[in-house]
Amino acid sequence: MKKVINNPENVVEEMLEGMAAAYPQYVRKLDGFDVMIRTNAPVKGKVALVSGGGSGHEPSHAGFVGKGMLDAAVAGAVFTSPTPDQIYEAIKAVDGGAGVLLIIKNYTGDIMNFEMAAEMAEGDGVNIEKVVVNDDVAVEDSLYTTGRRGIAGTVFVHKIAGAKAEAGGTLVEVKNTAEKVINNVRSMGFALTPCTVPAAGKPNFTLGEDEMEIGIGIHGEPGTMRTSIMKADEIVDHLLDKITKDLPYEAGDEVAVMVNGLGATPLMEQFIMNRRVSEVLKEKKIKVYKTFIGEFMTSLEMAGASITLLKLDEELKTLLDASADTPAFRQL
Amino acid sequence: MKKVINNPENVVEEMLEGMAAAYPQYVRKLDGFDVMIRTNAPVKGKVALVSGGGSGHEPSHAGFVGKGMLDAAVAGAVFTSPTPDQIYEAIKAVDGGAGVLLIIKNYTGDIMNFEMAAEMAEGDGVNIEKVVVNDDVAVEDSLYTTGRRGIAGTVFVHKIAGAKAEAGGTLVEVKNTAEKVINNVRSMGFALTPCTVPAAGKPNFTLGEDEMEIGIGIHGEPGTMRTSIMKADEIVDHLLDKITKDLPYEAGDEVAVMVNGLGATPLMEQFIMNRRVSEVLKEKKIKVYKTFIGEFMTSLEMAGASITLLKLDEELKTLLDASADTPAFRQL
Repeated sequence: MKKVINNPENVVEEMLEGMAAAYPQYVRKLDGFDVMIRTNAPVKGKVALVSGGGSGHEPSHAGFVGKGMLDAAVAGAVFTSPTPDQIYEAIKAVDGGAGVLLIIKNYTGDIMNFEMAAEMAEGDGVNIEKVVVNDDVAVEDSLYTTGRRGIAGTVFVHKIAGAKAEAGGTLVEVKNTAEKVINNVRSMGFALTPCTVPAAGKPNFTLGEDEMEIGIGIHGEPGTMRTSIMKADEIVDHLLDKITKDLPYEAGDEVAVMVNGLGATPLMEQFIMNRRVSEVLKEKKIKVYKTFIGEFMTSLEMAGASITLLKLDEELKTLLDASADTPAFRQL
Repeated sequence: MKKVINNPENVVEEMLEGMAAAYPQYVRKLDGFDVMIRTNAPVKGKVALVSGGGSGHEPSHAGFVGKGMLDAAVAGAVFTSPTPDQIYEAIKAVDGGAGVLLIIKNYTGDIMNFEMAAEMAEGDGVNIEKVVVNDDVAVEDSLYTTGRRGIAGTVFVHKIAGAKAEAGGTLVEVKNTAEKVINNVRSMGFALTPCTVPAAGKPNFTLGEDEMEIGIGIHGEPGTMRTSIMKADEIVDHLLDKITKDLPYEAGDEVAVMVNGLGATPLMEQFIMNRRVSEVLKEKKIKVYKTFIGEFMTSLEMAGASITLLKLDEELKTLLDASADTPAFRQL
């Protein structure tokens, strides 16, 4: 296992300590918990956004804690749902009196634990709403999921619901905005290599030297097809065909695009993918409003990427364009 | 070779096309040349900054073209110096009448070709100054270098000289600011794996399953030591010992820190490194002013990272803090 770590058992805690040391202007670690919150939390009178999940998807989610996005991110063990008590502590730490929206990726364990935490916090009088992101069009049901998985589209939910909360939206308004994003966002990914959970010490699946897997999940869950390695344009065509047919995205629509690297795939290859994304969308007369390229929702050092489309209206465009200032997403 | 590409011969051009499609608000590709320039170039009356080098180090350098940083980035073939005519075209495209500063990493081919381009542009009446970045403390002389190599510290030169130019500095002032950064910045890196240049199709060196190389260059140039894989803290201690002794950085100094991923090493591991960086600097009573973590100067899909320290004074702090708006570096 070639990793820059000290002890596989401590990777999450040490990561969060290193992150807190790097970004005191943005985040601090909640004492005794693997939870990152805004330095200035709680923000009085603002709806607070809490997200999180298993670690190993960095910069998701703690990298998006800051002005215009999240108030707290809860970090479970690698590829493991955070515990209810962690989530409860995060909620309590960031509630500014206007309520808390929980943004949950659709994994069975995450939903169960976020819901338990919500009940605990509601018992203390905190107003809670929750949304579940399920943007991955690859498969219905999966290794850890009933229904579709939540993947990189979650970052658009953080960005846009975060902007709505920052602008003074009420808890119900922020929830409705988040739901609107979820209803309009679709993603799909692929992998060229597996990744290794530090505590396991060996790859989470195997792929031959000339093989790739289409539709893979961000924890290595099986996808839709295992095939010999395709050219970049062929991969993009395949993913975009599934994605655009799903909502569907049609001629005249306006979208935000995210090309998301899963870990080991360099920016060079992500840009080569985007070249074809922009060509295909132009052919389909779908207008690209804004493009985001980089690592947003990773899978440790997996080689691969995902494509996300978000269909926009004027409200979503305004919120997408609002300034944000977090460790991993900044916009002037 | 597991890469998301179409044709190894076209990776640079297709990458730049994909980048131009992604970020029309920031950059455009110069017709017929592998050169990215600011969308609004030339900026009249502002000193223009031109950098670049071989491709494969993304987001360097085109990711740093935009307000507060570069005006143009010239992209050579992968790990290959750009040609003089490319660099000349970049200079001509961004000269706004106040002169052009060339920021060159210390590789023999880069220096030769940037100097030839400078002579050509000077022949046309463009005022040119140049600086050479040589921040890598690992080795004197190297495979492609006389003297020390230029690596991730170059990004601090882009940021700070770019801020000086944006603030209206003259060509000589901007050059002097760049030199001040170069005099105060030191870096060193390591690798756990090699990487594969697409046109070569095979890894650029070999490392055993339990081996790592300390002091490696960003093109896979030999480092100072090949050893079995060390713990993250041991790696950091080793690199920081070399870096801090070199300038030297001493008790009472104030620094900016960059932990730079080389490609396949996840943010998780970069944060674990930074945890130790902050501990060691605290022990040494060197104050951390600001920390930057992520991929700034990569080496395709190499696993590994580098650490950079920049010693700051009040002027450098102000310029480092100035807002910047580029594809890969944004600061409010």
